[in-house]
Amino acid sequence: MALVAVVNGPNLNLLGERDPRIYGTAAWEEVRERLERLADELGIEVEFFQSNHEGALVDYLQALRGRASGVVINPGALTHYGYSLRDALVDLGLPCVEVHVSNIFAREEWRSRSVISPVVRGVVSGLGAHGYELALRALAGLLAT
Amino acid sequence: MALVAVVNGPNLNLLGERDPRIYGTAAWEEVRERLERLADELGIEVEFFQSNHEGALVDYLQALRGRASGVVINPGALTHYGYSLRDALVDLGLPCVEVHVSNIFAREEWRSRSVISPVVRGVVSGLGAHGYELALRALAGLLAT
Amino acid sequence: MALVAVVNGPNLNLLGERDPRIYGTAAWEEVRERLERLADELGIEVEFFQSNHEGALVDYLQALRGRASGVVINPGALTHYGYSLRDALVDLGLPCVEVHVSNIFAREEWRSRSVISPVVRGVVSGLGAHGYELALRALAGLLAT
Amino acid sequence: MALVAVVNGPNLNLLGERDPRIYGTAAWEEVRERLERLADELGIEVEFFQSNHEGALVDYLQALRGRASGVVINPGALTHYGYSLRDALVDLGLPCVEVHVSNIFAREEWRSRSVISPVVRGVVSGLGAHGYELALRALAGLLAT
Amino acid sequence: MALVAVVNGPNLNLLGERDPRIYGTAAWEEVRERLERLADELGIEVEFFQSNHEGALVDYLQALRGRASGVVINPGALTHYGYSLRDALVDLGLPCVEVHVSNIFAREEWRSRSVISPVVRGVVSGLGAHGYELALRALAGLLAT
Amino acid sequence: MALVAVVNGPNLNLLGERDPRIYGTAAWEEVRERLERLADELGIEVEFFQSNHEGALVDYLQALRGRASGVVINPGALTHYGYSLRDALVDLGLPCVEVHVSNIFAREEWRSRSVISPVVRGVVSGLGAHGYELALRALAGLLAT
Amino acid sequence: MALVAVVNGPNLNLLGERDPRIYGTAAWEEVRERLERLADELGIEVEFFQSNHEGALVDYLQALRGRASGVVINPGALTHYGYSLRDALVDLGLPCVEVHVSNIFAREEWRSRSVISPVVRGVVSGLGAHGYELALRALAGLLAT
Amino acid sequence: MALVAVVNGPNLNLLGERDPRIYGTAAWEEVRERLERLADELGIEVEFFQSNHEGALVDYLQALRGRASGVVINPGALTHYGYSLRDALVDLGLPCVEVHVSNIFAREEWRSRSVISPVVRGVVSGLGAHGYELALRALAGLLAT
Amino acid sequence: MALVAVVNGPNLNLLGERDPRIYGTAAWEEVRERLERLADELGIEVEFFQSNHEGALVDYLQALRGRASGVVINPGALTHYGYSLRDALVDLGLPCVEVHVSNIFAREEWRSRSVISPVVRGVVSGLGAHGYELALRALAGLLAT
Amino acid sequence: MALVAVVNGPNLNLLGERDPRIYGTAAWEEVRERLERLADELGIEVEFFQSNHEGALVDYLQALRGRASGVVINPGALTHYGYSLRDALVDLGLPCVEVHVSNIFAREEWRSRSVISPVVRGVVSGLGAHGYELALRALAGLLAT
Amino acid sequence: MALVAVVNGPNLNLLGERDPRIYGTAAWEEVRERLERLADELGIEVEFFQSNHEGALVDYLQALRGRASGVVINPGALTHYGYSLRDALVDLGLPCVEVHVSNIFAREEWRSRSVISPVVRGVVSGLGAHGYELALRALAGLLAT
Amino acid sequence: MALVAVVNGPNLNLLGERDPRIYGTAAWEEVRERLERLADELGIEVEFFQSNHEGALVDYLQALRGRASGVVINPGALTHYGYSLRDALVDLGLPCVEVHVSNIFAREEWRSRSVISPVVRGVVSGLGAHGYELALRALAGLLAT
Repeated sequence: MALVAVVNGPNLNLLGERDPRIYGTAAWEEVRERLERLADELGIEVEFFQSNHEGALVDYLQALRGRASGVVINPGALTHYGYSLRDALVDLGLPCVEVHVSNIFAREEWRSRSVISPVVRGVVSGLGAHGYELALRALAGLLAT
Repeated sequence: MALVAVVNGPNLNLLGERDPRIYGTAAWEEVRERLERLADELGIEVEFFQSNHEGALVDYLQALRGRASGVVINPGALTHYGYSLRDALVDLGLPCVEVHVSNIFAREEWRSRSVISPVVRGVVSGLGAHGYELALRALAGLLAT
Repeated sequence: MALVAVVNGPNLNLLGERDPRIYGTAAWEEVRERLERLADELGIEVEFFQSNHEGALVDYLQALRGRASGVVINPGALTHYGYSLRDALVDLGLPCVEVHVSNIFAREEWRSRSVISPVVRGVVSGLGAHGYELALRALAGLLAT
Repeated sequence: MALVAVVNGPNLNLLGERDPRIYGTAAWEEVRERLERLADELGIEVEFFQSNHEGALVDYLQALRGRASGVVINPGALTHYGYSLRDALVDLGLPCVEVHVSNIFAREEWRSRSVISPVVRGVVSGLGAHGYELALRALAGLLAT
Repeated sequence: MALVAVVNGPNLNLLGERDPRIYGTAAWEEVRERLERLADELGIEVEFFQSNHEGALVDYLQALRGRASGVVINPGALTHYGYSLRDALVDLGLPCVEVHVSNIFAREEWRSRSVISPVVRGVVSGLGAHGYELALRALAGLLAT
Repeated sequence: MALVAVVNGPNLNLLGERDPRIYGTAAWEEVRERLERLADELGIEVEFFQSNHEGALVDYLQALRGRASGVVINPGALTHYGYSLRDALVDLGLPCVEVHVSNIFAREEWRSRSVISPVVRGVVSGLGAHGYELALRALAGLLAT
Repeated sequence: MALVAVVNGPNLNLLGERDPRIYGTAAWEEVRERLERLADELGIEVEFFQSNHEGALVDYLQALRGRASGVVINPGALTHYGYSLRDALVDLGLPCVEVHVSNIFAREEWRSRSVISPVVRGVVSGLGAHGYELALRALAGLLAT
Repeated sequence: MALVAVVNGPNLNLLGERDPRIYGTAAWEEVRERLERLADELGIEVEFFQSNHEGALVDYLQALRGRASGVVINPGALTHYGYSLRDALVDLGLPCVEVHVSNIFAREEWRSRSVISPVVRGVVSGLGAHGYELALRALAGLLAT
Repeated sequence: MALVAVVNGPNLNLLGERDPRIYGTAAWEEVRERLERLADELGIEVEFFQSNHEGALVDYLQALRGRASGVVINPGALTHYGYSLRDALVDLGLPCVEVHVSNIFAREEWRSRSVISPVVRGVVSGLGAHGYELALRALAGLLAT
Repeated sequence: MALVAVVNGPNLNLLGERDPRIYGTAAWEEVRERLERLADELGIEVEFFQSNHEGALVDYLQALRGRASGVVINPGALTHYGYSLRDALVDLGLPCVEVHVSNIFAREEWRSRSVISPVVRGVVSGLGAHGYELALRALAGLLAT
Repeated sequence: MALVAVVNGPNLNLLGERDPRIYGTAAWEEVRERLERLADELGIEVEFFQSNHEGALVDYLQALRGRASGVVINPGALTHYGYSLRDALVDLGLPCVEVHVSNIFAREEWRSRSVISPVVRGVVSGLGAHGYELALRALAGLLAT
Repeated sequence: MALVAVVNGPNLNLLGERDPRIYGTAAWEEVRERLERLADELGIEVEFFQSNHEGALVDYLQALRGRASGVVINPGALTHYGYSLRDALVDLGLPCVEVHVSNIFAREEWRSRSVISPVVRGVVSGLGAHGYELALRALAGLLAT
């Protein structure tokens, strides 16, 4: 069964405690459960990882080689400057979907530019915690073809 | 039953005939059918509109007032300069999800900036024709809350 | 009697239904009546045209040749990218006053640059629907000299 | 009776002696008389002030507190760098209309950006000395509502 | 016999009536006749289309599929922002030559950047109405190889 | 006893009357008294100067030569364009601390760049009227070493 | 008793060993002692944390939730690109004062822009190790109101 | 008989040996012969000059004074920085057509800006070696009027 | 006898006391005497004016109308933002030579752009106090022709 | 015997597994052996360190104080935003040579700017894994003088 | 007797034949004679050199080592891109004055930036052919001190 | 035996006489001898060429066709604007290593951008005259594979 890693960057462990006008009210635990149910439905396996350390995210992505088939990633603020993370994604060579809970294009100017987007297959932004599910669906579709 | 308009901008009537390395091979008719099936499943009504004229898109959006509950829009190249379209979306005041078949962040520099994104609820980019379905799902979720 | 064309661009047909904090509450029908009364007072004839299509605005301006003496124009969002409209105004060669209902210099950064302003005689911005009347007065003055 | 201050910045005392292709031929004394007549007609009081010193303009605006109901201001070249003047207008908190005799958008590039416009209610530019009258009318309208 | 479409964008229907210092004095009818004679000489068929509507130009280009072998296009002011037109040209996939009657590199700064040029085979700019003939010759040469 | 000049630029005479969400509620008189008490405590003498005229601020700084040992300065809006003031500070050659009542880095973009900061010893920004006291303490420390 | 965290970013553990022309000669141990004495005087508790890892700083800030009342932070070079740190500060929601030992506005161009400053209450820059004490005083003042 | 100088800048002596995907396969000798035949047909005289030295190109252009009636020039890479060449063309005061074998607007970003184009009558770009012939035709037309 | 005004902007009254590595050691009194001797030699009259107030410089320039034949001006730091001063020079309409004691092109980046230079006849920069004499000579030459 | 630290940043542990068109085929183990042989030959000692964590690289560099004589560093993607790493190199004060396996100037635009280069002695870029050896030779030369 | 080299860059051999509205009417021979007379008067020797080749200018400047005491240079259009010329001037290490016949700050935007100015002692611009004499006087002054 | 051309651009003939803080003290003759010895060791032949003329460098590179196997080039200041040189290197199609004696990334901003680097195999910068030897070694390695 194909493994999809769901990877969260800095501060996303606090989902549900951050400003609800921007990030909504769903806590990460709920999102995780919904993703597990959806994974079951789609016939794929999911694994979760979160870190506030860019280095740890790179370490983790490197360790996915030969083990995973795809990645759903919300890079948090690393979206805007995490070039090491970007290189790790490129080196990994798996299909990847980037998720943002908030609409990064409707906030501060600097948030509208992602250094990750040019190297992923797709981007889902602004659709709340639901975006993770959409990304997982999309990845399941990509893996099926 | 809530009505969602699925709106396509310039050149998207040719989906399936455009460069398949960028836009995939699904023709618009197939996408439309899949969307209709999904709408049934989600308990919403969908209506389709495409035009190569920005003015016609604005006319259409204005006419949705009081009739529709949400919009899925792929503005085509107007994404990058269609400020009239943007104003029409703002004036309409409905939840809207922007879709791009290709990953606009992995192409020419000018395609990575959308003038529409700051005024929509969310963006789905690069996930092929499947992106329309994800957007519809997202919108259904938004309408349900 | 000199004819002045009062031309409105995209989304201005909805004046009175747009966000009242930005555009005020006056509907276009009221503005039109006030303009007709003022035209009478100033001894000029007015004609009204609105379109959401840049092409239709260009068609209309071309057809004014030899018929009109001046133009009051609110280009809507075309203010910021309607170079075809700009060229049509230049080709027409009549005195023209640009109007904006809202103060375009106090909104999003991109609204503060007009591609139309460099080719008109004057600009009236931010004075609400009253701005059309001021523009008509100004044009009447220009035509009188 | 409401008092409106008509304030002129650097070099505007020479109106009528400046390049007539840009600024027209009306001298300030004529403009002032026309404004006084119009003020009578509109039932408001006008007071005039001009200085080549940004500091003096700030001093004057501060002294309007509690005395005036609105300001018509042509900041001259301070339009483009007079941030102290801008702050004084903001602090004053009265409705203000910015006037430019010439069309600042059709001249040198740097003249097309006003640091004052974002903090005023409206802008009248390029309509010659007549612009002051239009601004006064606009302000009278604003004060009446 | 190969068909070449000669396509004109906004305001080019007025060729011969626009500022003669910039656009010369040749009217479009004369240019058209010269092009027809040259087409005869080159053994190709020509068809003409003009619109002030970007959407109509896109519609027309889409309809050339399977019918035409090449395009000569003067996009008028759409040269500088007509990304929908650009995409239509790319999708069409035919050899295309871009023509400008005036030398767009010797006018306003914004005219020196064409969003169309990166997707055409060649550009002829500044050589007056004669430029259409040169473009037709070039296209005939390209079609012959 | 070392003399420290506390210098305020345009509009700071109105401290306490400006927008309290930005500038707080402390009036200049209160701030002045607190500074005098603190000066006593620190064993230094303070002198106050405010002007809305950049020229007057330059005149005053020039006159401090040979008389003062340090400067606390809040340049008001001159912070962003007062190059003459900057040169006067450089020529004076005394240790200087720049104060801003509001956090200039959290307001309009143009307020985040100070032309004064590169020539002073330190900057205190956003800490309200208390910032003057902190600057005076800092200066006292610098003078003591 | 209110707890204030004093947080130092990369390379600040070497304070006292870095270039003394830029950073002065005070070692961190001395600064810490002075801060502890000042905290006693101000009736607040202080806690110290330093890391060269942005992730560790984020971890630490997250762990302050419900425990601390304010933060004094010197982000070191993360000042200029530490968007994850910035988000952690925003999420924490406590009053925060940013400190720089050197005057970051008088060094390399890139040091003059802080990505942290827009989300803190105040900034103290260039006043040497003394800046920490001023920040603590400022924070004590903020906590008292 | 009018003399037209055909001038080639750096590296164009290798035409036919450069990357054929960019520059085509025609060698300069063939191009020259075709130009001589066309010149005969058009009743003008042609003279050829090539140099890799900007200085030599300037020397040559200066020596054309009083001898030539027009210039066809392909400045090679000097197109993008040869301001001395530009000044020489301006000083010469003859009608000039700029030619590029490749489409400079479809290559590296820096190639899309020509410092020569603002001072010539017209530009022919991307039409291969055939572009020289088109330029010669255009020049013959200009000389005939 | 033609009158030439020698005008100095902010901080130039301190010439001779400013940083000698940048401004040299000549005091203004010496420069003035040398200029008076040179004026005698050239058969022109000189008058001197200095102010730290831009407004006072504008007042003075306005008062030169009908009295002076030329201006030598060192705008000090106003060189870089004194648009009111610039307009006053344009309005005056006399030949003007701009002088800088230091080489403004070899200092901070912002000093290399003068807003005054585009409206004067010539510029002398970096040649010390001697530059005033060169400017006076140049002006005498211009007045003689 | 002088110690040289050879330091690798993020993702360089995978050398030999990354895209061979960009990074070549040599695995890090081979490179390391070649470097050890070369070090023997040059009479210096080498030590190796790699981390995907910027903080760990800073920690390591700090710990080299008093122990190492020089550094060969390939910062990986930190090259482009690792200002903390940069500061650690500056604080360390040892001669340092920066190495890039690929030619960073021939890839994405953002890779052509290194924030590390301004603080190192030299840069070797694009010469594959061989670049480490060249850097070590260079450093040996620098240490010998 | 001190030798001063007067060096002219591209196209300046045609002085007197270039556009007289920009460059005046003085031919180089006249300027040369006036310079020789002035050199006699100042007790210095002058030598003249002109080339359209940047390389030749560099060769010449290198050959001045040990022979000349100063340089007057008008780099022509190389002013704006002649970095090799700039380096040759720096390497030469002699006092140098840059001359421009026209006011380069009142022409095209690109002419207002000189890459030479940051490495010379002074600049004389816009004062016609007379500028060479002023530069020679300035240089004589510099050599005398 | 493979021939490697070692090519030096403007002002590099003076190596050893230029500012030793930037360029070191080694004269070109010494460097040349060391390169010849190294070439012997590496079993390749070297040939030297220097010119201050970009055109001569292009001529020379063109003449290397069919004769040389690689190029070591220090373009001097042409590094930053020598697009003709760049094109000649591309046309030549040989492996090339770019050398800079000084660290161009630690000097003026404009020196940090090389127009040559994107078309060479590798770059060696800042390692003094030793850099030529490293480049030759690198090239020998490239030629051996």
